Order: sequence, then C-alpha cells, then structure tokens
Amino acid sequence: MIGTYLNRVRERNPLVHNITNIVAANFAANALLAVGASPMMSSCHEEMAEMVGISGALTVNIGTLNAYEFEGMLLAGKAANRLGIPVVFDPVGVGATQHRQAVVKRFLDEVQCRVIRANAGEIAHLAGVAWQTRGVDAGAGEGNLKEIAETAAKRFNSLIVMTGAVDYITDGVQTLRSDNGTPLLAKITASGCSLTAVCGAFISVADTAEEALPALRDAALTFALAGERAARNLQANQNGSFFMALLDELASIDAKVLQEQARVHHG
Amino acid sequence: MIGTYLNRVRERNPLVHNITNIVAANFAANALLAVGASPMMSSCHEEMAEMVGISGALTVNIGTLNAYEFEGMLLAGKAANRLGIPVVFDPVGVGATQHRQAVVKRFLDEVQCRVIRANAGEIAHLAGVAWQTRGVDAGAGEGNLKEIAETAAKRFNSLIVMTGAVDYITDGVQTLRSDNGTPLLAKITASGCSLTAVCGAFISVADTAEEALPALRDAALTFALAGERAARNLQANQNGSFFMALLDELASIDAKVLQEQARVHHG
Amino acid sequence: MIGTYLNRVRERNPLVHNITNIVAANFAANALLAVGASPMMSSCHEEMAEMVGISGALTVNIGTLNAYEFEGMLLAGKAANRLGIPVVFDPVGVGATQHRQAVVKRFLDEVQCRVIRANAGEIAHLAGVAWQTRGVDAGAGEGNLKEIAETAAKRFNSLIVMTGAVDYITDGVQTLRSDNGTPLLAKITASGCSLTAVCGAFISVADTAEEALPALRDAALTFALAGERAARNLQANQNGSFFMALLDELASIDAKVLQEQARVHHG
Repeated sequence: MIGTYLNRVRERNPLVHNITNIVAANFAANALLAVGASPMMSSCHEEMAEMVGISGALTVNIGTLNAYEFEGMLLAGKAANRLGIPVVFDPVGVGATQHRQAVVKRFLDEVQCRVIRANAGEIAHLAGVAWQTRGVDAGAGEGNLKEIAETAAKRFNSLIVMTGAVDYITDGVQTLRSDNGTPLLAKITASGCSLTAVCGAFISVADTAEEALPALRDAALTFALAGERAARNLQANQNGSFFMALLDELASIDAKVLQEQARVHHG
Repeated sequence: MIGTYLNRVRERNPLVHNITNIVAANFAANALLAVGASPMMSSCHEEMAEMVGISGALTVNIGTLNAYEFEGMLLAGKAANRLGIPVVFDPVGVGATQHRQAVVKRFLDEVQCRVIRANAGEIAHLAGVAWQTRGVDAGAGEGNLKEIAETAAKRFNSLIVMTGAVDYITDGVQTLRSDNGTPLLAKITASGCSLTAVCGAFISVADTAEEALPALRDAALTFALAGERAARNLQANQNGSFFMALLDELASIDAKVLQEQARVHHG
Repeated sequence: MIGTYLNRVRERNPLVHNITNIVAANFAANALLAVGASPMMSSCHEEMAEMVGISGALTVNIGTLNAYEFEGMLLAGKAANRLGIPVVFDPVGVGATQHRQAVVKRFLDEVQCRVIRANAGEIAHLAGVAWQTRGVDAGAGEGNLKEIAETAAKRFNSLIVMTGAVDYITDGVQTLRSDNGTPLLAKITASGCSLTAVCGAFISVADTAEEALPALRDAALTFALAGERAARNLQANQNGSFFMALLDELASIDAKVLQEQARVHHG
C-alpha cells in the first residue's frame, strides 16, 4: 500500500551511510533527516567497513569523485555486499567523460547495486542507448524511457529509479510510472543526489525482495510530492524559497498525502 | 554578566579558523558570520601554522575526516598549542567506529584542547561511561549527564560544552546547566558542528582563564536561544524554514535577549 | 546594451566547470542554475581536460585548496588555455598566508586567466599595493580602488571584477564602476565565490574580445542587483532570509531590471 514505507522510515529511523559530493552533502543530509532517517557521511578508508556495517543502507554518488573517494566507494560497496546491506548508486554525469564511464563500469563490475538512481541520460548510457547528454544534465534522446529503464535493470540486476519529468521505477519486469513532481526540482542543485540518499532510507526498510519496488515507489513519490507541495505557492523562479520549502514538505508529508495525491500506475 | 561575550564577539569580529566537514562547512561559516565573527576554512598542510597564527581560535571537527584532513588537524592543533591559541574540538561520532576512537584518542593525546563540544553520547565515550550510540546521533544512556561532563572535563583538562535537550557547560569544577533550545535543532544537519565553530568565536574573546566558562555559556545560550526564537512561529516539521530562520536569529540576537530569556543555573 | 549577456546566458544555458571550495560549492551551483547556466564541479585529475573541453568556461577558486585540488586546478587551467576556453580565477585570501601567495603566483604564471574576480584586498595584493587584509576578508587600504584594479588588469592581462561596497570592472584601459549592491552580501558566506562562478557563465557568452567587459558588467550587475532586490524587504540582520531570497532574485531578474536599476558608469 502506498505510504507503508514512508511510515516505516519514520518508525525505524534507519542509519544511512552516504559517500556523496561536496555540492550535495548538506542538502542530502537534511533530506534524510526530514524523511525520518539518520545520515552519516564518510569516505575514510579505515572506517568504511565498520561504518557500513552499522548502516541500513549505503548510497554512493560520484558527483565530485577523486581517486581517494573512489577507493572509499569500492571499499564501502564491497563491505555492503559482504554484509547484505543494500547499495544505492548514483552515476552522476556518467556520459560526460571517459573517466566517469570507466569509474562507473568498474563500480558496477565490482559491486552489486540493489538500486541505481539517475536521470534519463545517465540510465540511457548504462543501457547502451544513444543519448545526447550535456555535462551532468539529463539531456535528451529518442529512446522509450520505460524500455531504457528496464534494459538497465536487467543488465545490472538492479532496481532502477529514473527521475525526470516522469519517474520510472522498475526491477526490469514490473515497472511503475509516476507523474508527480515539479519543474522546480531541476532548478536547484543536488535534488537528484538527495533523492539518491533518500532511496537509501527507503530500501533499508524493505524487508523482502518483493518490497523493494514499492519501497522505492514510496521514496520517489515522497520526493516528487514534497516537491509538488513546496511549489504550490511559489512562482517558477523562486529557486531559493523552493529549496527550503522542499525540506519543510519532506518533513511534513505523510502516507495519507501519498495515497491521495500519487499519480502512479504500471508503466 | 550574561551577554558580555556576545557583545565582545560583535565588537572584536574575531577570525576563527575551522577544519570541518563537507556537510557543515557552509552552515558553520554562515553561523560565524551571523554572530559577528569571520570564518576561515582550510586544512592545507602548507599553510596550517600560519593560518592558525592569525586566528583567534581553531576549531576542529572530524565529521568527514580522512588521512589528509587528520594530518592537517594535528598540524593546526599543535601550532595552536605552541602559539597559545585556543582549540575547540568536536569528536563527531567518536563511538561509531574504532577508527574514530583511535583518531580522537590521538588528537586528544597530542593536542591540548581548551574546549570539547559534543553531544551526550560522544562525551560519555570520552568519559569512559557506557552509552548506547547510534552512528553520529547522541543515543541514550543511563549516566548522570552532569557527572559525565565533569569527568570528561577533568580527564582532558578541557571545558566541556555538552549539548542536547539540556546543555551542560563545565570546567570540571563549576558546571552550568542551560534549559534553552528547541527540538528543531536536532532536525537539521550540522547544528552541533556549527555551534562548535561558534564556540571558537566566543572562547577567542575570553581574556582570562576565568572568563572561559561564562564565554562558553554565552556561546551555548546564543545558539540555543536563537534556535528557540527561530522556532517560535514554526511547526515542528518546518525543517527548512528553521534552517534559515536560525541564521536570522543568530544575526539579530543580542545581550539583552540573552539576559532576559536565559534559563541557566548552576548544574 | 545592459542586459544583453544575461539574456544570452538564459538562451544558451552554458555549461560552466568549477573547481571551488567546500563552503561555496552548493551555493555557487545554485547561483549558476538561477542565472540560467549549468554547473559542473570536479577536480578529478583524470577527467579535467575532457570536462573543461565540454565547458563554456572554467572557474577556479582556491578557498579550501590542498595539493590535490591545486594540481587539478593547474591541469584544468592549462587545458582551458590550450582549448581557448576562458578561465575565471578567484584568489581567495591570497594575502592571508605565504602558501596562498605562492599558489596564486604559480597559477597566474602558468595559466592565462581571462578574468580575476576578487575583493579589494585580494586585488591590491595582486597589484602589489600595500593593504591590510584580515584572513579572507577584504580588509582596508589607502589605495585608489580604480587604479589598483587597472594595475592588476595590466599586470596579468586579465579583466578584473573587483567587488565590495563599489564594484569595478576593468580591462586595464576601460573601467566601469557599479554602485549597486547591499551590505547583506558580505553577511553570508560564499557570495563572492558564487559571483566568480556566475562570471564564468557570462564570460562564456562573450563572443568577441570586445564583449568581455560588458558581459562581466552584466554579471556583476546581475549579482549586485539581485542582492539589492533580495534585501528590499529584509532587515540588515536577516542573513538566512537573504541567503534564499538572493537565489529567488538571481532566477527572476531580467534584462529590463538591469537596464532600469543599474547605477553603472565609467569609473
């Protein structure tokens, strides 16, 4: 039932360990606190395995990676796999440079990711579909978004949370499409990165394999609907006001709102 | 007299050098500006001694440390000790991993800290008291908070600023208890880290050893009361609005407000 | 014509690659999005040349540099020079330590910077004029600000954007002075660093050498006027409210506002 997993996050207050970038770190931590989770942030090699071991999920974001950070990501990801802790991966700007492509390939080769959260351009790259990306933006392409998400899900044996004007959540077999959201989410930095962190909170409360898809549906809905509600009384260019209102709404949104306002259906 | 040191910070506009984490850096700098201090942030080894030398205080926070950062912290801390510049230390999540414990032990062995600012779980760890921590959260324990703070103060010959639902400020002999604050402070990230930075500003204007305790009382009161005032017209889950209102209140609070609204007494 | 380049930034949506500090990263990215550009942030050596190659401009800020970051800055700067992509440099706190002086000297020796954006104290240092700086603050000095800016422009063959109570924009021959702005801009951290990033967006849409000066005039005006407008309904100590209102105004300001409210003239 829609909202079940938002309730669980609020009840269980899961620890989520995040290796993320210097742009998103603050907002991602605040987003996790707002939905009811507890953020931890570290890429310190000496503590990676132990830190991951006390966490409900690990989220990894390559936004501002360097060699040290990437080594930390691999240590954390492998520890998570060993311990059965779900990994959420955000291949920021994978199409932008050859190094990002190599880094993403290596991470996906060496770490089994339960979830990949990215925009359409990034998922298209992972799915091997031609796409015109621009830096770390989503870009535009011709492919069928649903098929692209399903192809990536099958290729990496991961759940895909593909966000944009429309969100797709898929395990490669079942696909959900959500039409919630607001263009303002693309006008502030780190909204995608913060959703990645929030996906960590929600996947950590999925107690069975079957619960993974609906848990991520709740994650995407929580974020998109909080955005919608934050935008209600704002103009299209009140970026700063939206930034703060989004945190207010992430903290106040509840299962009832999700149930009433979700525009989600099988993709 | 309550408020004396807030006035001094505003008059003297002290430079405070901070080695802090990627989550808190922006908010801590804004909090320092708001109370009337000037923030500097760097962990660059080549400039540590010189940077510390022009500062009124050094604050060190291990939130997202790595080997490079930690080496910078030691260089900065030793330079501060050599130059007689007060060091404020924030042992973020010391109980979370063995590496944090080792790092905190080494820092406290090699650097004399004038002030340690932390939550109850972290101070309990330093005092050697059993405590149930969770990641970087305060957790919960059975000990007498006042005694724990005093034990830590004596063990490290430091002033302790222990924050939570109740704040304790102690030099191990005299202890002040402040009941000011708001639960919203725990709902945004980096509020503790930012108070650590603010403690740097206040300890830098304590001109004698006797002034250290009342200066830190003013630091804790300024932060807690700014939080209380920011929360006045907000609901419990307006995290984002609180985040910004806290900066407004840190900038506008004055000695008169502190005197009138402080709920502080000998602990 | 005033506002031409703001219109162009909105039309062209340039990618701007930024190597900046952990304090400013989030706000600088949000400021770029607000004016209509697309931010990228990375100092990862392996991708520097390629990342710069897809960008309209590179901005480099030494706020929280370390050896790794600085090497990335040099790689990026040299790639930009090779590819004819404009470099905007922000020598944060150059007067504060000998290491910053050495680092800034080396960067300016090895990389031709199209633009240097800094406060009066930093530009005075570059121009070789005696100046009393304090940490990363502007400080105060005796020199004629216009002459200092022109001297620095000639010495480094760069355009100078010198910001403060009055802004000067000069190529060493022509100098513009803008009286727009608000004291609140100095009360939040990273406002200067964010303007540096915004200068990257504007210089990237200058199609000829002659357009560089008016493009930077528009950059400085956009920032200063957005600040003025954000401050209109605020008190002098509403730092947090200003922080967010500035993003709203950066996103909504347009060429008409610039034309009507600019207080700019030949210096």
